[in-house]
Amino acid sequence: MIPAQFPTPPESQALNIATSQFSALANSHRYVHCIVKLGGAAITRKDELETVNDPVLSATTLHLREAMGLSYTNVSMDWSRRNGSSIVDLVPNSTDQHLGFQNPFVVVHGAGSYGHFQASKSGVNKGDLKNPLVKAGFVATRISVTKLNQGVVRSLALEGIPAVGISPFSAGWSTQNKALKRDNVLEVQRAVDAGFVPVVHGDAVLDSTLGCTILSGDVLVSRLAQVIKPNFVNFHTNVPGVFDRSPEQPGATLLREIVVYEDSSWTIVDPPLGIGSNGGVETAVAAHDTTGGMSTKIAEAASIAAMGIDVFIVEELLML
Amino acid sequence: MIPAQFPTPPESQALNIATSQFSALANSHRYVHCIVKLGGAAITRKDELETVNDPVLSATTLHLREAMGLSYTNVSMDWSRRNGSSIVDLVPNSTDQHLGFQNPFVVVHGAGSYGHFQASKSGVNKGDLKNPLVKAGFVATRISVTKLNQGVVRSLALEGIPAVGISPFSAGWSTQNKALKRDNVLEVQRAVDAGFVPVVHGDAVLDSTLGCTILSGDVLVSRLAQVIKPNFVNFHTNVPGVFDRSPEQPGATLLREIVVYEDSSWTIVDPPLGIGSNGGVETAVAAHDTTGGMSTKIAEAASIAAMGIDVFIVEELLML
Repeated sequence: MIPAQFPTPPESQALNIATSQFSALANSHRYVHCIVKLGGAAITRKDELETVNDPVLSATTLHLREAMGLSYTNVSMDWSRRNGSSIVDLVPNSTDQHLGFQNPFVVVHGAGSYGHFQASKSGVNKGDLKNPLVKAGFVATRISVTKLNQGVVRSLALEGIPAVGISPFSAGWSTQNKALKRDNVLEVQRAVDAGFVPVVHGDAVLDSTLGCTILSGDVLVSRLAQVIKPNFVNFHTNVPGVFDRSPEQPGATLLREIVVYEDSSWTIVDPPLGIGSNGGVETAVAAHDTTGGMSTKIAEAASIAAMGIDVFIVEELLML
Repeated sequence: MIPAQFPTPPESQALNIATSQFSALANSHRYVHCIVKLGGAAITRKDELETVNDPVLSATTLHLREAMGLSYTNVSMDWSRRNGSSIVDLVPNSTDQHLGFQNPFVVVHGAGSYGHFQASKSGVNKGDLKNPLVKAGFVATRISVTKLNQGVVRSLALEGIPAVGISPFSAGWSTQNKALKRDNVLEVQRAVDAGFVPVVHGDAVLDSTLGCTILSGDVLVSRLAQVIKPNFVNFHTNVPGVFDRSPEQPGATLLREIVVYEDSSWTIVDPPLGIGSNGGVETAVAAHDTTGGMSTKIAEAASIAAMGIDVFIVEELLML
């Protein structure tokens, strides 16, 4: 848990470029209870190309149902064919159920074993669309990540969560030299206002300097949190949380609570390890850089906490 | 062929709502050779739920390749798994091919046996998101149409066309009492500028009066044509073109060329049937209303022709 004590926005490349192309929301929008980031490593089998980790995704879906406070029994909203099954039987007969819920959520997911292969094989994140491999890789990456997005949306819809996919590239999110330049938070909020659960994903996007790059799910979460101001943000990963070193190393300690201050300095308050810092988040990140995607996650999480929004980094099944 | 003699925009509900939320393009954008509408009835098997008409889609893809003037031999840009096949072999080894093409296209497709069932079962086009069936149907419709979109994008990408899916709902297209209220043509044009072939589709969208409705592919084409101003627009259907009555009736005659005038009156010039009209397009539409989706198509085609853009309505395999 990283509760923020000071709600002042932090210094951050991705967040501080104030142009008219960024969304700003009026007060008339529906509040968002939580932005959930489903880590690609958690919901896919990272070592098997384009394979969803079904047990994890199913469990997550059920936790999400619960956390949203869905008041109705399951009404399947996925009426599409699955492995040749007829779709007619899946249409709910009863129309007298109220499909409301107490706690609006926004879901963002990473790519895991979808997209990662295509992107790394082609170097999409470095740009240069004149390079044929990059151009082909951009197309291939988008095919793969939107395939996963459809899988996630269908998993949620099958359990009665009114999920709607929103693709950042389609919606006009783009970058300049890898830093967010245009967003479209408004479309995400509009979907929430209409009673849906938007499901956004890390995507290949256009970059005005480089031609193209990868916009990560973690950066999306950070920007969405800044504009939407949810009650809290939940990062679901495939490890139990943040450790003081790689969790595979002997003596690795789970850091249960980190306080992030206005000036981006932080203190670990639980357990009371005596590890404090005036050196900013980078120090914490450095301590974790062997745990793969954890560094970006912590940096983005800290920037969200510094906005005054509580952040939880948890393993899949400990959701809420 | 419906060549327009007068490039003045026609009166049209969908086109004449001039608000700041509509796109306007600067001159710096890449020109678009053609907007192709792939009819849902053509690319899917209309009587089989969620089934692509593979021979038609494959043939269309090859025609599109040719029409775009792709200068390179096939470089697959679909590196995703298909029926369990390994994806590694599909990545092109050669990176020295130039993936440019002479004629930029925008592709729009209908829903056919995708989405139609879900939408009609729930009444999404009539709106009312407070009705649980409509709300569930909105989710179900979007799942189905985005599934088809992915199929079309993958078919094009497999043949080396740099296709990128753009979902109208994601991109912020929305309506007011069924008439287009906000578009996002700019994102489509940006994808063209970056060297891609955007693939847009009929979608379930939010409606500020009704809650939600269906935005048809034909309306999308009309709006895209108005802003993008392509050289011509191509409607691909499952019949050879426009007839003077239902093509199934005896004596039905194919109308080879119709001229649409500034005031929306029109004349059939080939064959010289002596059928002229001062009565506007409605008369022509009425003559065809038994051919299913043809009426909307003709109305939208006539409105595009009146903008000064040649429109072709052709059967799939006679593409260009």
